[in-house]
Amino acid sequence: MYLPRAANAGRVVPYSGKAVVDKVLCYIVREGRLLVFRHTDYSYEEVGIQVPGGSVRVGEQPEDAALREAREETGLTGFAAVRKLGEVEYDISPLRFEIQNRHIFQLKLTGPTPDRWASQEEHDGKQEPTRFECFWVPLEAAHVLQSGQGALLGRLFD
Amino acid sequence: MYLPRAANAGRVVPYSGKAVVDKVLCYIVREGRLLVFRHTDYSYEEVGIQVPGGSVRVGEQPEDAALREAREETGLTGFAAVRKLGEVEYDISPLRFEIQNRHIFQLKLTGPTPDRWASQEEHDGKQEPTRFECFWVPLEAAHVLQSGQGALLGRLFD
Repeated sequence: MYLPRAANAGRVVPYSGKAVVDKVLCYIVREGRLLVFRHTDYSYEEVGIQVPGGSVRVGEQPEDAALREAREETGLTGFAAVRKLGEVEYDISPLRFEIQNRHIFQLKLTGPTPDRWASQEEHDGKQEPTRFECFWVPLEAAHVLQSGQGALLGRLFD
Repeated sequence: MYLPRAANAGRVVPYSGKAVVDKVLCYIVREGRLLVFRHTDYSYEEVGIQVPGGSVRVGEQPEDAALREAREETGLTGFAAVRKLGEVEYDISPLRFEIQNRHIFQLKLTGPTPDRWASQEEHDGKQEPTRFECFWVPLEAAHVLQSGQGALLGRLFD
């Protein structure tokens, strides 16, 4: 489903009545494995497995948003952008009646990391931090990702 | 990514070198919840949560394939097609270097079912059955689905 977007769109309301919001997703690959995380305060059946990502802030470039989200959600630093793999639209209704326009980036990470580690995302002290567990999955098994987040994994090989 | 397909395509090899294969997926909804299943012989991190679906056999209509897969994977009968929600393409590389052309159907199920039950899919006696656990998730949480299977959940509300 492709919806019309204003040239300066941060949020627009297309004909369907669903807002279009710009999001970023990060594919961070090392030694044939993809960096993923899950919420430790929810079950696998409630939330599933995802890659770092989130909303593009007003005035922020998508690549900067990708690097920021990767740092915030993994607790790691030393990320660098490799390339933009593309954009895909994903209708997240009925969780929210909006179309996510996802900018997907491949990032690289220098320096050693554990196989599995805990991280958390702060919310400006307004609420409890969100707790995550980060780990690596083989790329062949990475389509386990929830909500269509694996849509451009194939482009890593094109 | 849209690839050219032959009019009579069961499998074709497009320019990318990736085969295009016809698949079906079933959205079975009742009381605001979606029927899903998981493999009980694998962890959530290995396989994730999915809806009934599978390959369209040679000479089989996609709707018939959807009804067959729903019965085989849930062990239930009494399915009927409500409507075809649409088709989406999903690149499943590198698990397999192929593009899945997914025909997504909404099905309905008459009669009571448990909240959670075990099922298994036979393989013509050639190998051990594949064991599943079926259950219902609220539609608001259904984007937990792996490998982009939730792509057309929004159309249930259009």
